[in-house]
Amino acid sequence: MDLPKGFLFSALSAGIKKESRLDLALIYSEVPARAAGVFTTNKIKAAPVILAEERLLSNKLQAILINSGNANACTGEEGLIAARETAAYVAKNLRISENLVITSSTGVIGIPLPKDKIINKIPFLVASLSPDGLSQVAEAILTTDTFKKVYAKRINIKGKEVTILAVAKGAGMIAPNMATMLAFALTDINIEKESLKEALKKAVSQTFNRITVDGDTSTNDSVIIMANSLAKNEMISYKDKEYKIFYEALEEIFDKLSFMIVKDGEGATKVVDIIVTGAKDEVQALKASKTVANSLLVKTALFGEDPNWGRIMAALGRSDIQIDPSRISISFDDIEIVSQGKGCGEKAEKKAHLVMKKDYFKIKINLNIGKAVSLIRTCDLTYDYVKINAEYRT
Amino acid sequence: MDLPKGFLFSALSAGIKKESRLDLALIYSEVPARAAGVFTTNKIKAAPVILAEERLLSNKLQAILINSGNANACTGEEGLIAARETAAYVAKNLRISENLVITSSTGVIGIPLPKDKIINKIPFLVASLSPDGLSQVAEAILTTDTFKKVYAKRINIKGKEVTILAVAKGAGMIAPNMATMLAFALTDINIEKESLKEALKKAVSQTFNRITVDGDTSTNDSVIIMANSLAKNEMISYKDKEYKIFYEALEEIFDKLSFMIVKDGEGATKVVDIIVTGAKDEVQALKASKTVANSLLVKTALFGEDPNWGRIMAALGRSDIQIDPSRISISFDDIEIVSQGKGCGEKAEKKAHLVMKKDYFKIKINLNIGKAVSLIRTCDLTYDYVKINAEYRT
Repeated sequence: MDLPKGFLFSALSAGIKKESRLDLALIYSEVPARAAGVFTTNKIKAAPVILAEERLLSNKLQAILINSGNANACTGEEGLIAARETAAYVAKNLRISENLVITSSTGVIGIPLPKDKIINKIPFLVASLSPDGLSQVAEAILTTDTFKKVYAKRINIKGKEVTILAVAKGAGMIAPNMATMLAFALTDINIEKESLKEALKKAVSQTFNRITVDGDTSTNDSVIIMANSLAKNEMISYKDKEYKIFYEALEEIFDKLSFMIVKDGEGATKVVDIIVTGAKDEVQALKASKTVANSLLVKTALFGEDPNWGRIMAALGRSDIQIDPSRISISFDDIEIVSQGKGCGEKAEKKAHLVMKKDYFKIKINLNIGKAVSLIRTCDLTYDYVKINAEYRT
Repeated sequence: MDLPKGFLFSALSAGIKKESRLDLALIYSEVPARAAGVFTTNKIKAAPVILAEERLLSNKLQAILINSGNANACTGEEGLIAARETAAYVAKNLRISENLVITSSTGVIGIPLPKDKIINKIPFLVASLSPDGLSQVAEAILTTDTFKKVYAKRINIKGKEVTILAVAKGAGMIAPNMATMLAFALTDINIEKESLKEALKKAVSQTFNRITVDGDTSTNDSVIIMANSLAKNEMISYKDKEYKIFYEALEEIFDKLSFMIVKDGEGATKVVDIIVTGAKDEVQALKASKTVANSLLVKTALFGEDPNWGRIMAALGRSDIQIDPSRISISFDDIEIVSQGKGCGEKAEKKAHLVMKKDYFKIKINLNIGKAVSLIRTCDLTYDYVKINAEYRT
């Protein structure tokens, strides 16, 4: 894996999760980095989200302490104190200003953060920081995820080699507008702070905000970017042509991680892109694609590999957008199964059934009344989703 | 079962469903009845819905032909012709005006209605009309339902005995605003037509529009009422005090049927009322209760009997309403598990877990910022929901 210069990583088990799994991680830049964040739209925000939003007003960051197994959400004033205290202890051990440290949490809501367990481990976490720790960090931030999600890309900016890397977690509670997902993008590029913020916001809107696992959004979603300038390129801003190179690389990385998150959706066996074209405007296109992507009847049909386009039509019909049923066409990859609002017959459905056996395919819906387009990436709804989420935590 | 005067019923198997199950039914009033209907809000309306809306403009009806196994939805112009032709053939056999006949369909979307199979059976259907046929009608209208849904009540109106009876089907695709549900209310009351319409609309809004199984609404939902005046009471209207007696009986019947529909939700093992109080206004109360009632994470937790209030809080937080997390309290029946935004501890959760073992209980959410209230009735999300809906129809 290509690493950006000057970033160190460490992770260990602090006993927050059961069975000694890795659950506490630290990401550290050797120099203060320019930084930006995009956070959950849920009105109930976890304590670490509140703290991070506050600290990122300075656009500067040097370390992120991440725990899994406990969301530190709905924990009141004490939760906020716990986030501040653990961040302060990290700062003290790193000998940096506590304003340069944020925390990030994911896991169960409503249980007080076991802050003593965390504080006890911080000296060890700091002592073991190393460029080699990335893989352990990628593991420590997972909850019900089944695989690590890391992607990196190297680009050339004004003659200098620049590396962008991002690590993410996803699984359940994934919906447009992020849900329980955390992603940390780390780069050594030298970029003006407002341009960095702009790139992050746009890339998130095009990728992480266009995926859904179960339509639920969480209290903890965060995407953070740190850019520490150690690639020593001449500083770029959104006015430069190099900005486009940077932005495209960032979007590509987030797109790969988004795909991994849906692929690893709780119980998911398939990734399916719902592509709506021909909508009246962008808002309607988005509504249509979201309603289809979140319909339980569509998602169970994906699992059953049943090209049940009636369920897609019914979802479109209730999605509160302008439609003319007699103009709608629907294809599964290149197999058209609805033309001008009517089914194309059994033969087409048999072919579509074969498309659905793939672990990734596209459902293309043309409303044929306008020019707006939207894509939402979803997964199927399976027995395992129910199993994973119906467990009683004694 | 108490029957209203003058209504006859019959049902048989026309081979629309597999395995010779009952799938074609006829409801007939010996005299033309005043009538009203409430229909799906889905923009894709099935052919019989379009026809029934048109014919009910006259507020008169004498017969309803109902088939299950095929929704006659997304079937284009031919679908509408099929609805008209089958209705006309019923009218001819009954020797009444075809304007007094509507059809109602439920089942798979997008397959042409097998109208010849239906027409061939209509003479037999008419010949076997009888007061004893109700139970068979209740069975013939079912799709994935597992039990028949009938409820009747007798009231006294101005010294006359009046009977109101309703028969319904539900199962999947049930969401606020009706979904695939059909209900037919039959009564011998003599009531002014606008008052009948008003009573139907209000009773539906308080009952069938407040239940959800999977958040999907269908193309075919219909609630029809026929009032044939054969009880010979002096005609009442909404100005009379007897109107209240009639309305309350109708709402009670619809409430019982709504409960049965949720209880029989696809795969459901529990009925749960989500009651939001203390919301800023009614729109916000409804949004909050609907979001919680449709959250997959909440519904799987109901199945797992896990009092995971964090999922309820997260659903409230994304429901696009005004909240103050530190004011929210949540109870399961009478066990408070969240007070002022914070969990009440393990002991309370253990008690709530016992409440969740019941097959019917209430989740009460007090937002504590206003006075508005809303109730949505939901069910749990289970393996069987996935199983029922993930089947590939070969």
